Amino acid sequence: MPPDVAVAELRREGLIAPPGADQPIHDGSGRVQLSFTVIDGQDRTVRVPTGVTVFDSASWNGIAIDSTCGGHGTCHKCKVRLDVGTPVTRHDRRTFSDGELDQGWRLACLATATRDLAVEVPPLTTRPKAATVGVGRQVILRPAVQKRYVELTEPTLADQRTDLVRLTDAVDDLEVTVDLPVLRRLGRVLREADWKVTAVVVDEALVDVEPGDTTGSAYGIAFDLGTTTVVATLLDLTTGTPVAVASRLNAQQPFGGDVITRISAVMLDPDALDRLQGLAAATLDELAQQVCVEGGIDPAQVYECAVAGNATMTSLLLGIDPEPLGVAPFVMPTAHPPVVLAAEVGLRLHPRARLALFPALGAYVGGDIVAGMLATGMDRDKRTRLFVDVGTNCEIVLSDGDTLVSTAAPAGPAFEGGAIRCGMRAADGAIEVVTVDVGEGTVTLGVIGDVEPRGLCGSGLVDAVSELVRVGLLDASGRFVPEEQAAATLPLLADRLTKVGEERVFVLHRPAPDTDVAECVYLSQRDVRELQFAKAAIATGWALLLEQLGLEQGDVQQVLLAGSFGSYLSPASAIRIGLVPKIPVLRIVSAGNVAGEGAKMALLSLRERAGATTLLEEVEYVELSDRPEFNDRFVDQLSFPG
Amino acid sequence: MPPDVAVAELRREGLIAPPGADQPIHDGSGRVQLSFTVIDGQDRTVRVPTGVTVFDSASWNGIAIDSTCGGHGTCHKCKVRLDVGTPVTRHDRRTFSDGELDQGWRLACLATATRDLAVEVPPLTTRPKAATVGVGRQVILRPAVQKRYVELTEPTLADQRTDLVRLTDAVDDLEVTVDLPVLRRLGRVLREADWKVTAVVVDEALVDVEPGDTTGSAYGIAFDLGTTTVVATLLDLTTGTPVAVASRLNAQQPFGGDVITRISAVMLDPDALDRLQGLAAATLDELAQQVCVEGGIDPAQVYECAVAGNATMTSLLLGIDPEPLGVAPFVMPTAHPPVVLAAEVGLRLHPRARLALFPALGAYVGGDIVAGMLATGMDRDKRTRLFVDVGTNCEIVLSDGDTLVSTAAPAGPAFEGGAIRCGMRAADGAIEVVTVDVGEGTVTLGVIGDVEPRGLCGSGLVDAVSELVRVGLLDASGRFVPEEQAAATLPLLADRLTKVGEERVFVLHRPAPDTDVAECVYLSQRDVRELQFAKAAIATGWALLLEQLGLEQGDVQQVLLAGSFGSYLSPASAIRIGLVPKIPVLRIVSAGNVAGEGAKMALLSLRERAGATTLLEEVEYVELSDRPEFNDRFVDQLSFPG
Repeated sequence: MPPDVAVAELRREGLIAPPGADQPIHDGSGRVQLSFTVIDGQDRTVRVPTGVTVFDSASWNGIAIDSTCGGHGTCHKCKVRLDVGTPVTRHDRRTFSDGELDQGWRLACLATATRDLAVEVPPLTTRPKAATVGVGRQVILRPAVQKRYVELTEPTLADQRTDLVRLTDAVDDLEVTVDLPVLRRLGRVLREADWKVTAVVVDEALVDVEPGDTTGSAYGIAFDLGTTTVVATLLDLTTGTPVAVASRLNAQQPFGGDVITRISAVMLDPDALDRLQGLAAATLDELAQQVCVEGGIDPAQVYECAVAGNATMTSLLLGIDPEPLGVAPFVMPTAHPPVVLAAEVGLRLHPRARLALFPALGAYVGGDIVAGMLATGMDRDKRTRLFVDVGTNCEIVLSDGDTLVSTAAPAGPAFEGGAIRCGMRAADGAIEVVTVDVGEGTVTLGVIGDVEPRGLCGSGLVDAVSELVRVGLLDASGRFVPEEQAAATLPLLADRLTKVGEERVFVLHRPAPDTDVAECVYLSQRDVRELQFAKAAIATGWALLLEQLGLEQGDVQQVLLAGSFGSYLSPASAIRIGLVPKIPVLRIVSAGNVAGEGAKMALLSLRERAGATTLLEEVEYVELSDRPEFNDRFVDQLSFPG
Repeated sequence: MPPDVAVAELRREGLIAPPGADQPIHDGSGRVQLSFTVIDGQDRTVRVPTGVTVFDSASWNGIAIDSTCGGHGTCHKCKVRLDVGTPVTRHDRRTFSDGELDQGWRLACLATATRDLAVEVPPLTTRPKAATVGVGRQVILRPAVQKRYVELTEPTLADQRTDLVRLTDAVDDLEVTVDLPVLRRLGRVLREADWKVTAVVVDEALVDVEPGDTTGSAYGIAFDLGTTTVVATLLDLTTGTPVAVASRLNAQQPFGGDVITRISAVMLDPDALDRLQGLAAATLDELAQQVCVEGGIDPAQVYECAVAGNATMTSLLLGIDPEPLGVAPFVMPTAHPPVVLAAEVGLRLHPRARLALFPALGAYVGGDIVAGMLATGMDRDKRTRLFVDVGTNCEIVLSDGDTLVSTAAPAGPAFEGGAIRCGMRAADGAIEVVTVDVGEGTVTLGVIGDVEPRGLCGSGLVDAVSELVRVGLLDASGRFVPEEQAAATLPLLADRLTKVGEERVFVLHRPAPDTDVAECVYLSQRDVRELQFAKAAIATGWALLLEQLGLEQGDVQQVLLAGSFGSYLSPASAIRIGLVPKIPVLRIVSAGNVAGEGAKMALLSLRERAGATTLLEEVEYVELSDRPEFNDRFVDQLSFPG
């Protein structure tokens, strides 16, 4: 067996990860830009972490590329045309003629994005039976939304079957229940449509009967309902392909940046719950209308939504008082939110469209993490894997290939730029990459939007601290070295080490030579402390989980960094500051927006959706706050391993 | 075994009917009045058909009397005090002292109402495990509405079970699902009530969580939703006892007296459906509020309603277009209406109260008849029984103790006083009983309300025709005999046979000697024809059903006359005009408001409710309108058997 075929075999058996999933993010390099030209579709320009495959980059951003193997390098169908000069793999040689290779044709699942690229995507040639979502997960299409076109015989005195039985007899592969609004329409639609209708079933509910054959139009929207950012993906449920993607800030932002401030708002003001519910609904609805416009789809053709959100976001969307989530002993109303009508929470889609919310493990390991576990196949991989969703509340899941344990760590706002002197969100002007060259005495900054730096976002903070530890300007305890020591050992950088008021700082960017240091973008001693507290909380979490399963740091075979922040973090920096276990950098994987991917999977496959419920039974939730050893371990983790 | 014990045995085995059920209505005697004085309760005066037991009279009218055997004469608990002089049975002698007997104490299930009676009812001494409903049906209490009081342990960091699981773990004998509005309240109620709450479950739905122990209060309302009259019975679901009964005309009346005119209204006016739905809801809601006031019950303690109505009434209540019910081939939207929230159709009870509608056999054998079959145990009796619900549309069910067949016959409005010259509803002033004495030459009239006669209601019409056939003023073909023949054979009555315009009439009541005949209450030749058509339609129905099962008229062991009209019909007259098979008069039983009784059974027992669904599979619906022999048989049935 040739090596690459053997590799594909191993991949199929889940013994090694698919291409892309294992690709390291180039140390400190941040993101690259892919410009997709979609034949018969909408062009898009997207930014992705370096090293992600072109196939995954497209998939995550709602761009459909032919594939039957799901990006595993075996079907040879994901043909795209890239800039001339892209490396040619063995599979490319088997698939394309020399002329085609010269024109830039490559297999998208084997081409990695290591620099800015132009990508031409041909139209889909087949209607797939399966779709690729999550981290290389191949999902057989069996959505909860099912349509059946039937041509019924008219009733006669000899055949007085009821309208409903006449319909359900014809749709005999599905069990259906009907509720009143549909029953009210049924008789008229059947007769006006001359008994030729399409039954629309979601799970077991007959949600509509449409005149004629509408089986070609069935859509769903997957929502990643984040505390900060909300992402919507419109999916064509007949093909599994994404039609449009949109994101925006959660409109609840004015009530506070994290879940605790929003819970507090509800505790202080009896009207806040209604307003927060309305804002969550407005956010989802605005995105829903936007993706429908972008996709050229009537919102009434959207029959189901899947929502992955943390327990607080889920409660607020449903209008359930989140107070018990915010105070010890942190109790959820239910782990399994009921299926509701999308209209019931305020979405203007099909009037009977269902909204399914992911179940949650605990008050601080919510539906977003369960969705993420689904998308990354946490329970279906034999390797020892650590899943870390870095954020204000950091969720951690550890699997030894057999047992799954999880916990939550209160990291605070540092990773979102909060409580940091020059901190800001990951928006234009934010420093996201920092590289220090000791020999040249230079500090190179990667800035979002390639504009004048305005501040420091989470990944930039981690990079800055990591680099200063590496070069020796910060010691292992997190203290800036004395000025005289800096001047002696790093003369070219020493002048950046100064003070703002009484506090020592390191200047990252000085707009002009005479700019006052207080107007510069800098890293302060207190910023370093904030980061130490944040990363120690996370490290204490995974350290205690490792202990629980009798494992050492080195046993971890893969770390999945999830969430919008995790995806842009430099693995090398994360290791250096001790945010993740000390393992080879290649084992650290940016998993992308796995909550949104899990929501897509739930829309595309009832089987996968059931898998989320199974996960709940498999994963043990470990409450850290009542562990007596927590504080000791936390102190242990404050310093930098170097 | 003494004879009466043997009788009780046979009754228990269903081989003979319970007392009351088999009691004949005294030929031509109509109704008697019972004045109940209820100790610790509300006094009531009711009118019931002669011959019904005091126990059944009380039960049908919402007056609770102690009983554990369900009125079968075995428990000796249904003690009441009647007028002195009421016959004493053997069981009375065993139960009461001579002094008590002298004071009028009797067992209510053995005392029949053959004359106006005063009845004193002592307070209930026990909370029964079973209730008597329907025609002597004993129902073990297991309502869909279940309450469980639980005292929960407070959550701790070591016990972070969700609020819902904490509750459902404690209510472990019930499977529950929860919907959003209840989930929204759950957390607050649990905490404010210090974790001591009562879970309210209807079927499998958790409809509320109430602070403290409210298990003593659980109510339901059984509705008989008739085209003409609607009856509501408020039931205490913890004891099975009726608390209050109320009835009123269906507010849809202005749209027409029968289902066809109401269906036509919807076909002609697109707004009529909404208005009819609203009127049905308003009728039910007004009655619901009335029985709650009478029973001293907060409407929010009513958690479930059961509704027995024909297919058109059911459709209109649900807001479903009834047009397909009204035109061939007479198709229902569904045989099994979905369970809806009472609030969804417009009832102001508990906001999550469920409303369960009886399933229907066909467009013209609806949920009211299925309820009636349940109440009369049509599928649980080995005898050959014929169930006839007389009305504009007459529903007929025949059982040979094994096979059940049913059909509907379009009888027209004659039985409701419609299309009859001096016809009127059964209200004050209506002649309901007619007795002709040939020797005296007198016509004795029973008039509702004991007032001056104003017209002729259905039972009076049947009586009048029957009597005139009996005395020979009407011949077998339904024609008034020639005047000279009347004068010769019945000289004392002949002057009543006269004319109004060109039409021959028989004067029943002349207010004053000089009153013009057109101002009198009379029976016209055309009235007789109308009755002939009506009764022939019904007789054709049961005759074809008998044929279907290979039976003769004489094989019928019991005829159950159901519905408000059937209950007041004179069995002898019904036989004489050929409305029912020619069998001994004792086998004709007035079954009362069996639809309402069936609705009560559904509220009191999930098992009985399931029985209604089973019935649908057991009963074959026979469509008469496509039978080629229908017209011939109809003509055969037009004449009077005499």
